[in-house]
Amino acid sequence: MPATLCGFFASVPEFRLIKPRTPPGVMELLPRDQIAFQRMLDTIRLTFERFGFLPVETPVMELSEVLLTKSGGETERQVYFVQSTGALEKSAGEGMPELALRFDLTVPLARYVAEHEHDLAFPFRRYQMQRVYRGERAQRGRFREFYQCDIDVIGKDSLSIRHDAEIPAVIQSVFDALAIGDFTIQLNHRKLLRGYFEGLGIEDERQVAVLREIDKLDKRGEDAVRATLAGEGFGLAAGAIDKLMAFSQVRSRSHEDALARLAALGAGTTLFDEGRDELREVLQRLKAMGVPESRYAINLSIARGLDYYTGLVYETTLDAHPQIGSICSGGRYDNLASHYTKSKLPGVGISIGLTRLFWQLREAGLIASAESSVDALVTLLDDEGLDHALSLSQQLRAAGLNVETQLEPRKLAKQLQYADRAGIRFVVIRGGDEAAKGMVAVKDLRRGEQFEVADADLARTLLIEREQWRALPAEGQR
Amino acid sequence: MPATLCGFFASVPEFRLIKPRTPPGVMELLPRDQIAFQRMLDTIRLTFERFGFLPVETPVMELSEVLLTKSGGETERQVYFVQSTGALEKSAGEGMPELALRFDLTVPLARYVAEHEHDLAFPFRRYQMQRVYRGERAQRGRFREFYQCDIDVIGKDSLSIRHDAEIPAVIQSVFDALAIGDFTIQLNHRKLLRGYFEGLGIEDERQVAVLREIDKLDKRGEDAVRATLAGEGFGLAAGAIDKLMAFSQVRSRSHEDALARLAALGAGTTLFDEGRDELREVLQRLKAMGVPESRYAINLSIARGLDYYTGLVYETTLDAHPQIGSICSGGRYDNLASHYTKSKLPGVGISIGLTRLFWQLREAGLIASAESSVDALVTLLDDEGLDHALSLSQQLRAAGLNVETQLEPRKLAKQLQYADRAGIRFVVIRGGDEAAKGMVAVKDLRRGEQFEVADADLARTLLIEREQWRALPAEGQR
Repeated sequence: MPATLCGFFASVPEFRLIKPRTPPGVMELLPRDQIAFQRMLDTIRLTFERFGFLPVETPVMELSEVLLTKSGGETERQVYFVQSTGALEKSAGEGMPELALRFDLTVPLARYVAEHEHDLAFPFRRYQMQRVYRGERAQRGRFREFYQCDIDVIGKDSLSIRHDAEIPAVIQSVFDALAIGDFTIQLNHRKLLRGYFEGLGIEDERQVAVLREIDKLDKRGEDAVRATLAGEGFGLAAGAIDKLMAFSQVRSRSHEDALARLAALGAGTTLFDEGRDELREVLQRLKAMGVPESRYAINLSIARGLDYYTGLVYETTLDAHPQIGSICSGGRYDNLASHYTKSKLPGVGISIGLTRLFWQLREAGLIASAESSVDALVTLLDDEGLDHALSLSQQLRAAGLNVETQLEPRKLAKQLQYADRAGIRFVVIRGGDEAAKGMVAVKDLRRGEQFEVADADLARTLLIEREQWRALPAEGQR
Repeated sequence: MPATLCGFFASVPEFRLIKPRTPPGVMELLPRDQIAFQRMLDTIRLTFERFGFLPVETPVMELSEVLLTKSGGETERQVYFVQSTGALEKSAGEGMPELALRFDLTVPLARYVAEHEHDLAFPFRRYQMQRVYRGERAQRGRFREFYQCDIDVIGKDSLSIRHDAEIPAVIQSVFDALAIGDFTIQLNHRKLLRGYFEGLGIEDERQVAVLREIDKLDKRGEDAVRATLAGEGFGLAAGAIDKLMAFSQVRSRSHEDALARLAALGAGTTLFDEGRDELREVLQRLKAMGVPESRYAINLSIARGLDYYTGLVYETTLDAHPQIGSICSGGRYDNLASHYTKSKLPGVGISIGLTRLFWQLREAGLIASAESSVDALVTLLDDEGLDHALSLSQQLRAAGLNVETQLEPRKLAKQLQYADRAGIRFVVIRGGDEAAKGMVAVKDLRRGEQFEVADADLARTLLIEREQWRALPAEGQR
């Protein structure tokens, strides 16, 4: 008998229990939290699809040679390599393993678009919602496995600024649908930024260094940053520093205010003017799309991905929770897949790090305990009632309700307690009196009400109740 | 300037393009196929939720020590180990790496239930639909990364046979909803099998070996199997072989036939009677649940996971495509998590290997090219129409339609061609004539019809069309 079958008849004695636990840096949820998380994933996906983005999934493992096209850098230090048992024995630590786990969804997108270039229609609009892997230092709130929810629009040779304008409308729809509070989409443009620096005589390489200092304004305070910029290494004149400070502190308070602030910047270098005009066009299109003006603002301090973005850049912050930082960021880039193809593929995209966001919302007490995905529990009082309970449950399911059947009779109080703890809204009870009349009693645990209804009307009644509840504004549901 | 930022202003010259490609053994889909795949995933999830199963997701990486509790065996040879760059450098091939990728969803379930035992309500009903990893030999149709869609019901100390009876009702709902053709859920019971063998004097250890031979009936033919069982190593008498053959060829043709065949088996050992009675109870509950009798049958040759299952076992086959093999299998097991906890956790569950199933259906030409997830393309004839197109698109989205806006004007023929290739059903056109009347023209590419409708009625009209189409039987949609 093969060794793998030894366990079949003879149960092997257990000498040592292994402590069941997950590796550090992953988020594993109990079912009620998983339901809340799944609802967020569903909402994001639905919204991405509303805007005509198409689904893509890529394998979690990529060829290392394909994944790691850049030399060095922090990212590569964090890569997880993958080896089968056989490969592990053979290689014994020599050379780079053949496979690695993706660390973002952008490199796989570049590989995908380059690989399938001739089968895709451009502009190519895709969404991808999968997990990525980074060997982060183990630390509270840092994840080694986390969801990214990305959209990107990829053009061939060129891509109109109009696509950049549609992106904030997607962000607005996503976060209004998620209903986690007021938020602001902050807009800036790299060309505006670079053009302004040029105008001050700060040339290419120093721009990045200066930007990094300005990025520290919130942390270090204005005086410290001013001192650094005036000091050795930068040596900027006080006048230039004043201008930089004023520029980077521009925030708009309304649509008209944003346009006025752009106008007030006046003219500058060609680069500057291009950036200003594109930012203005984005604002105008947002208005045409009916995006509420409270949801977006220009913020000329937003720098974002200094080595990557070349045009519009986006960050999104929760108005009441700025400490969470940006919950959805992205921007325009010049060329997606230069490592894989000679085609020029400019693009614009954003990413939501949902695992981190969910974790932070939960830490901040902003994730309410989700109602169960189960709409109704069909209870069982005695064995005689089983076939009726099974058949009634199937009727409810056929009508579109999620139903759990209590398959073994227990005290009604226990069954009610179970439904309550699980967050199941309706409890269907068929006692002797009700059975005689062809009726059931329904306890609505959310409303704290009870009613009787004929078996034949049960499905319709519960569906109507469910729809009415969903139609209520969120406050009414609490 | 940090090395990671070098790419910002100076674009690094490209010396060598890397060929974009996925590793062997993964299934990556173009968007239209991905939409079809996603719809199957959604259908399965919806059905699992209809039956009150709760979602669970576990990390793809588990601690090797936790994942690999069994010694040796084929599975362990196929495990993928994971190491960060740092760990790789440190260990240099010594010892077992700390992390490994899950190779199924059952071991992670065992770990999850044992770890969260005190936070879960039992019987615990969970579904899990995630990818698993196996270092399979590279071969057409063999996957190293593939989706499993699992449900399991886990009891504490005991679990009623009624849960085993509900499982085929879930399988029936899933595959009727997937609409991939007629199918049969084949039922057997390990105790019936083992009891029958006992009755023939075939003791514990030899049962497995005999079962393996009987499993080869389809491949080797009856004569060859008879010869093996009569030959050295087995030495079974001709009478016993006749009985074995007759027993393993029992298939029912209807509900009543199944009951009659069970009755005809008569009484046997205690084990045999237990198995027969439980199988009978399952049949009776299926009838109470209204599962169509054409969807299930007893098949006493089904053995399935010899080292694992102890009660009911299930296989599901497509009636018109038996060569695909079982598309959904599972059964009852005695103790889920004996490696992690002293609690006795009996369970019953099934698994659908969706990647393999999708691949095989596509190979067999049974996956039609999916209609796009995009319902409508709002076309653009000239720049003046842009703001109207943006605003109209947003109206349609708010009403619940998935809409792509053509953001740059192109020839109408090009836009229609694009929609046609992408599988987008409705194309919305606003020429000068229509615009003057506050109307748009709609081309319905599926029906090959065109109509005019007022802007304000567009969303409602498209929604009604979409719903009517969905309500049609599948044949009417082709």
